[in-house]
Amino acid sequence: MKTGYIGMGIMGKPMAGHLLSTGNTLTIYNRSPGKGDDLARQGAGVADSPAEAAKDSDVVFINVSDTPDVESVLFGPGGVIEGIHEGLIVIDNSTISPDATKTFAQKLSDKGCDMLDAPVSGGDIGAQKGTLSVMVGGEKETFEKCLPLLETFGSKITHVGPIGSGQICKACNQLFCALHMLACSEGIALARRAGIDPAIMVDVVSSGAGGSWSLSQLGPRIVAGDFEPGFMIDLICKDLRVLMEMGHTLKAPLAGAALATQLFQAAQAHGLGDRGTQALSVVVEKLGNG
Amino acid sequence: MKTGYIGMGIMGKPMAGHLLSTGNTLTIYNRSPGKGDDLARQGAGVADSPAEAAKDSDVVFINVSDTPDVESVLFGPGGVIEGIHEGLIVIDNSTISPDATKTFAQKLSDKGCDMLDAPVSGGDIGAQKGTLSVMVGGEKETFEKCLPLLETFGSKITHVGPIGSGQICKACNQLFCALHMLACSEGIALARRAGIDPAIMVDVVSSGAGGSWSLSQLGPRIVAGDFEPGFMIDLICKDLRVLMEMGHTLKAPLAGAALATQLFQAAQAHGLGDRGTQALSVVVEKLGNG
Repeated sequence: MKTGYIGMGIMGKPMAGHLLSTGNTLTIYNRSPGKGDDLARQGAGVADSPAEAAKDSDVVFINVSDTPDVESVLFGPGGVIEGIHEGLIVIDNSTISPDATKTFAQKLSDKGCDMLDAPVSGGDIGAQKGTLSVMVGGEKETFEKCLPLLETFGSKITHVGPIGSGQICKACNQLFCALHMLACSEGIALARRAGIDPAIMVDVVSSGAGGSWSLSQLGPRIVAGDFEPGFMIDLICKDLRVLMEMGHTLKAPLAGAALATQLFQAAQAHGLGDRGTQALSVVVEKLGNG
Repeated sequence: MKTGYIGMGIMGKPMAGHLLSTGNTLTIYNRSPGKGDDLARQGAGVADSPAEAAKDSDVVFINVSDTPDVESVLFGPGGVIEGIHEGLIVIDNSTISPDATKTFAQKLSDKGCDMLDAPVSGGDIGAQKGTLSVMVGGEKETFEKCLPLLETFGSKITHVGPIGSGQICKACNQLFCALHMLACSEGIALARRAGIDPAIMVDVVSSGAGGSWSLSQLGPRIVAGDFEPGFMIDLICKDLRVLMEMGHTLKAPLAGAALATQLFQAAQAHGLGDRGTQALSVVVEKLGNG
């Protein structure tokens, strides 16, 4: 198929690469130029605007930071909407507001263009390996038409429900990640303070009923003081803002997620925004160390 | 070896059964009589007091509800201390205070008796199958002497550190279980309220970076409204009391665990104490349902 990909970040570029390497044509666009140069050398076209990427594609993907960025890519100057044509499908791989997603989809639908929201989980490594979990909202028929494309970068692809459902599911996913990281941070700080070897605790707990992906994968990094980002605190703070806005709109109390959000924000205040989410543990340790 | 087992609860009885079925002699004691009758039919002796169970044993195990119960079994009328003899080892499989454990061990040590704290994780099914995780505190030499006995009911047996370390590790384990259950409760409530199928969300999230044992094993039960106890809310509230006391003594702030504790206590207030920990979700749903 003829595909376009807008947003050559640490997620978008490898995902676009899978589209290209599986035999689709690819046109890329990135706000700051040069970021997709290696894909261009492998045969991707480089567009001057989102509109141009859309014009040349059957399906155009978006993978940018936040709700206003998606809005700008779609409806701003040179936006996708200026390159819209019969049968174009927009797939948004960004993690943004479910409500805004519905609004965007309606505006595109008014111009005859279908949209799927398809946020992903699995990090940069999942993007590189093509093993992402993809949570998709939108019409079932559109989903099925696009499934072969989603399969190029995802190993678990789920149609969650109507438009926005992928974003709702992703928000839930981030709620779990945030609370699990709070558990890791408190549990490891407590083990240290109580005088047991935190590495032993992580090993024991992660193999049983207290286990989580976060504890197995990031617990040892916390113990080792390794705060290199797999997923940055600034990004989970953005995702948690989307989550807490959902809670506000739905009048859904999220006491645990709210606490985790505040502590992640404390981590930002401590200058840890560009560190991995496991650096939450630095703040939790500091809370108990005068 | 000659073993004794005090406390024929849902955990203690199957654990004692493994000691017996692997060729050890076994003397059992339970406060309310009759509970170990089937073990007696399989050849276990039945003692009239903890002292008598200790007198006949090289190693006597304890598995009772709470710190005062262990104290009473050890030092109350007819307690283990009255049956103490050269070389006796006490192994406490209960989940109780690490600080009280150290005090108990010191009092036993003054009489020439070694003690291990060896709380377990893995529930009644792990106890029956002999696949418990056993977290052990105490002298390494004593641990190694007792390892063959611990292996009869455990598949992961870890020497965590000196006396009390097993209880500290178990407290951390319960912190993870409690916060993970809070995540499950909030995440599923949010998915429902936002209008996506919570079963799909549980499936998607549990297979990725948001996954946990709690979500995989208990998430589907929450979705199905199945609150049968694997592990009762009354028991996790007791364990969380031990945890929060640790935090108090160590001046360790445990903001997340404190929130989870309060919500589990709300579940008790709602009459859910004898339901499984996943019934926390009932309270979290009610918070958002006027």
